[in-house]
Parts: sequence; structure tokens; C-alpha cells
Amino acid sequence: MPLDLAAIRAAHERIRSYIKRTPVLTSTRLDEASGTSLFFKCENFQKAGAFKARGATNAVFSLDDATAQRGIATHSSGNHGTALARAAKLRGIPAHIVMPSNSAKVKVRAVESYGARIVFCEPTQAAREAACADVIAKTGATLIHSFENEDVMSGQGTATVELLEDVSNVDLMLCPVGGGGLLSGTAVAAKSMRPQIKVIAVEPENADDAAQSFRAGRLIRTEKKFTIADGLRTNVGTPNFAIIQRYVDDIVTVSEEAIIMAMRTIWETTKIIIEPSAAVPYAAITEDKIDIGGKRVGIILTGGNVDLDKLPWMGIRDQKSEDGVGS
Amino acid sequence: MPLDLAAIRAAHERIRSYIKRTPVLTSTRLDEASGTSLFFKCENFQKAGAFKARGATNAVFSLDDATAQRGIATHSSGNHGTALARAAKLRGIPAHIVMPSNSAKVKVRAVESYGARIVFCEPTQAAREAACADVIAKTGATLIHSFENEDVMSGQGTATVELLEDVSNVDLMLCPVGGGGLLSGTAVAAKSMRPQIKVIAVEPENADDAAQSFRAGRLIRTEKKFTIADGLRTNVGTPNFAIIQRYVDDIVTVSEEAIIMAMRTIWETTKIIIEPSAAVPYAAITEDKIDIGGKRVGIILTGGNVDLDKLPWMGIRDQKSEDGVGS
Repeated sequence: MPLDLAAIRAAHERIRSYIKRTPVLTSTRLDEASGTSLFFKCENFQKAGAFKARGATNAVFSLDDATAQRGIATHSSGNHGTALARAAKLRGIPAHIVMPSNSAKVKVRAVESYGARIVFCEPTQAAREAACADVIAKTGATLIHSFENEDVMSGQGTATVELLEDVSNVDLMLCPVGGGGLLSGTAVAAKSMRPQIKVIAVEPENADDAAQSFRAGRLIRTEKKFTIADGLRTNVGTPNFAIIQRYVDDIVTVSEEAIIMAMRTIWETTKIIIEPSAAVPYAAITEDKIDIGGKRVGIILTGGNVDLDKLPWMGIRDQKSEDGVGS
Repeated sequence: MPLDLAAIRAAHERIRSYIKRTPVLTSTRLDEASGTSLFFKCENFQKAGAFKARGATNAVFSLDDATAQRGIATHSSGNHGTALARAAKLRGIPAHIVMPSNSAKVKVRAVESYGARIVFCEPTQAAREAACADVIAKTGATLIHSFENEDVMSGQGTATVELLEDVSNVDLMLCPVGGGGLLSGTAVAAKSMRPQIKVIAVEPENADDAAQSFRAGRLIRTEKKFTIADGLRTNVGTPNFAIIQRYVDDIVTVSEEAIIMAMRTIWETTKIIIEPSAAVPYAAITEDKIDIGGKRVGIILTGGNVDLDKLPWMGIRDQKSEDGVGS
């Protein structure tokens, strides 16, 4: 199904009973600190802890019965694997999740908790893809890629549909970009529902292939440095980039330090738990990367799955944490 | 004003425009883990980060104009001081907050942020009371005690009014007890609105003076051991205990380990930030201290002001954290 508003609305109907309609949070303090009105779409409260439940559920429930019965497969070290395991359980079909052998235990347990079969592989992209291809060859399962899949993109767009239904007159949507699944759905939904809206994507400067590609007008693969925003380490997908070129107004980048401080500020100020990737758009505001003065700004908080034993500001010097906006 | 439902409803009208009507959160996972239906009243999202905003605001706005103009005073190392500073700022009157010299910087900054005058003192109860008496003698300010004050208790009861308006057929209310301000308001509101409801208080076993007093039928002062639930370290107040004896059905105690694990489980499962004191009622469920099977249980999550540099499970052995209910 081509990615358009009709597909996104159809996805919304399809998944409505399996996902949460998450709340939109506002904060007087963050509005005062930023001189604008921020509307945070809380996908950290989504089922399985991230927006990924939307796209995964839509993809699984879009399969015809015969195809579905053969099961689904993916490779994922993160939220998509969990979301897909959950969706498969809801539909009562087998799920094969290829995970790198160094995956966080909490992620492995989450996938297991939904009864999926886990296939461990070496922690390289090539090994992941090979293991996934092998599973598909042996089982006849359908690959559901975490972002290069139009049903996944349509599902991710439903978060923006809800946000724009709940909040009037949004001027600007901010969205992190990794593979571009969320960004594709967000941009198509936002521009289709409200053509005057601006859509700006935000990317860690340590993984800025999307920003470089956007400026160059062609896909550029970059060598990645480490980013704490683990959901955004991947390169942007090919179909996603085509959509981004058409619908997205700009892509800006943020520093690691700004991501960590933004995450901490949101925790301290709003008392909700978000993962580092979810803090990336707010980091762009604190780093003055976007002209937001007086605008009404929608922000997708992508998820809340965090290792509570290793918070990213542990080890950052006290002085820095004491200068946080919301503290 | 005597503490009854009329006083609590009047408090609600008085403070309505200054506080948040906080949401009630539910969790399929926690319901499954506990075999019951839990309704969490999210006072961690309250203004100034804790239910204390309710009582402090009611007390400040209950003063007549002439009295109010002379200002208000209290001694507090925690949320009450912040809440009172905020309420005084809203009414435009002076606030004098006596704080122990070893108060957490984040608390000092929070009080300062509302423009209150801070008077530091030695970190003993006697020094706090002496410093507060001195401020009052010099300024004519009115003491607003953090729990031995009926306007404060009435204000705290408004959280339960909202919970019972939003959730039908609650069988049981769980509430932590320290000084007993929240518990007094909670018990009077709950029993007055719904006489068949049970009200059970939960206290850290390391600070179990209320539980001992309740069993003995008279106020007992205990020597306190350390508890991570810093909001509950204080002895129960005299007027509070009289109300507790009349309206509360039982007081149970929980271990430090259960408090820490309950806090972590709530963070991981619901993606909200609560302080240790707020986790005490859920700890009683995990320790099987209360017969909750199949009941509809209301729980006040008291607040979300936490030092994000020092989370209580840091240092707890990995094995323990991996056995948490919600992980």
C-alpha cells in the first residue's frame, strides 16, 4: 500500500484495539524555558514501551491469513523486535526474531515474554541479515523490516494523526530520524492533514547520514561514531529517504551532550521516563538549532525503554547536570 | 476547620485553579503481576512534583488577608517547603522556609525558584523548630506545619476525592504514612465518600512508629533507622493519629528492599518517575502484606522528586534487580 494519509488512517483503524492512544503532555516549565508551546506525544507509554508497536502491529495485521500463518521474521536488537513479537502473539502466529548475541538482557527477556523464537547471531549487520534470510528460507516467514516497509511506516504515522487530532494549530513537528520509518509516517501524516505545517527531523551529529544525505540530495552512507541514542544509529532506508526528500523541510543535528542533558531535563521536569532517542528533538531546541519562537511544536517522544542501571548522565560532571534547564 | 468531607470539598474548590487534576494510571502488567486492579493517582505529576502542593495551597489560601500579608513560615527539608514557597508566590505573600544546612541542593534550588526566603539551620528537629519560632517571632508570619494542620490535611484529601470521582467501585485505598497528613485527608475523604471502602496505610519497617502506635492504641515514639523513603521518616503527628485511629483500618510495614524493588518496577513498567515514598504501598503488595485478591485498589503515588544522580538500586546486586516483577 503506498504511503499516504488514507493508508495511515486505515492503519489506525486496523491497530486501534491493540495499541494505546497515548496522552499528549505539556509542561509550563519547558514552555517557559523554550519560549514556545511544546506538545509531547508520549509513545514511551505505548504498548511494549515505544511507537514501534504501531508499525509492527499494522504490518502483522495487514498480512493475509495464509501468509500470516507461516509467521513473521525480523532482525532487531531493540524495540521493533519486541513490538513485532507482541503483534505476532496478538495474531497468534509464529515470530522469529534475530538478535545480536550482545543484546541487552532486558530486550531479550521482553521478546521472550511474548513467546517469540529468538535466533542469536554475531553482532554485525551482515550476520543479522544472513541469519534472518536463513530463518525465512527455512520457515516461509515474512520479513517485516523495521523501517523499509510501507505498512510499518503507515503504522508509525498514526502517532501524528492522534497528536494533530488532540492539539490544534500545530506549526511544527519535530521527529528524530534513524532508519526513517517514524519520520516517513510522521511527515506524510502531518503534511497531508495540515499542509502549512513544517516537519523538521533531528539526528545525532555522531550518526548524521540522513542530514548529510538530505543536504546532498542523494543517499550518503557515513561511518558512524557512537551515539547514546541507540535507536538512531542505523542508516536511513532507501524508500524512507525518497519520502523524506519530498515531505521533510529540514534535518538538523545535535551533540551527544545535548541529548543527555535534554533527556535528564525531561525526566526531572515532567517525571516521565524517556529513552535517549526520544530526547533528540528537545536537544535541538536547547541547542538553538531550530527557529521555534512562539510556535506550537509537536514532538514525538519515541519510547521509554531504558536500562535503569546505566543512565547516560552517570559519569557526566556534576556542574553540567546542575545547569540543566528544568532543574 | 474540622477535617471532614465538607472541608475537603471546600479545599478542592479553593485550590482547583492552582493545582493539576492529575491522571489516574493503570497497568495491565502490574494488574497481572498482582492479581488485582490497581489505580495509581499520579501526584508525581502534581505542581512542584508532589501532593504537598494541595495542602500547602489550601493552607495559604485559607488565611485571611491581614494574616496572609504577614507571610507564612515552615520548616521542611522536602516537598512541603517547595509547595509552600509556590503557594505563597501565587498569593503574593512572603514565605520563610527553614531548611537544614544539609538539604539536597535540588530542594534548595526549588524553594529559591519560587522566591522564598530560606533560613538554614543545624540538621536537628530542635534546631529546625527553634529557627522557625525565631522567624515567626520576628516577622509575624503564620506557621504552616507540614502535617499537623487541618487545612493542610483537607488539601491532601483532595487527591482521593479526584481518584474516587474518576474510578468507580474502589474497594481499598493504600496510602503511605509518615507524619500522617496525607493519610488523614485520604482516610476521611475515602470513608466519607464510600463508607464500605477499606483504608490501609503502609509504612517502612525502619520507621514504623505509626504501625506500633496503631497497634498499641497510643502514640509511641520510636528510634528511627534509615529508610530510603525519606518522606516517611518523621513521627506521626498527634492530631493525625487521632484521625488515623478513627478512620484507618490497618497499618502494615514493608522492608527497604521491597521499597526499592517496587520503585524500580513502577519505573520500568509504567515509565513514570516516582520517589521512594511513593513506592511504599506497592511494596506492600509485592510483599503480600495485604489481602488484595480481585479487589479494586486505589494508590496515591505521592511524588516524583528524585535525585537522578543517586538512584536507590545502584549498588543493589544485579541478581535482585533482575527478579523484579515488571522487568
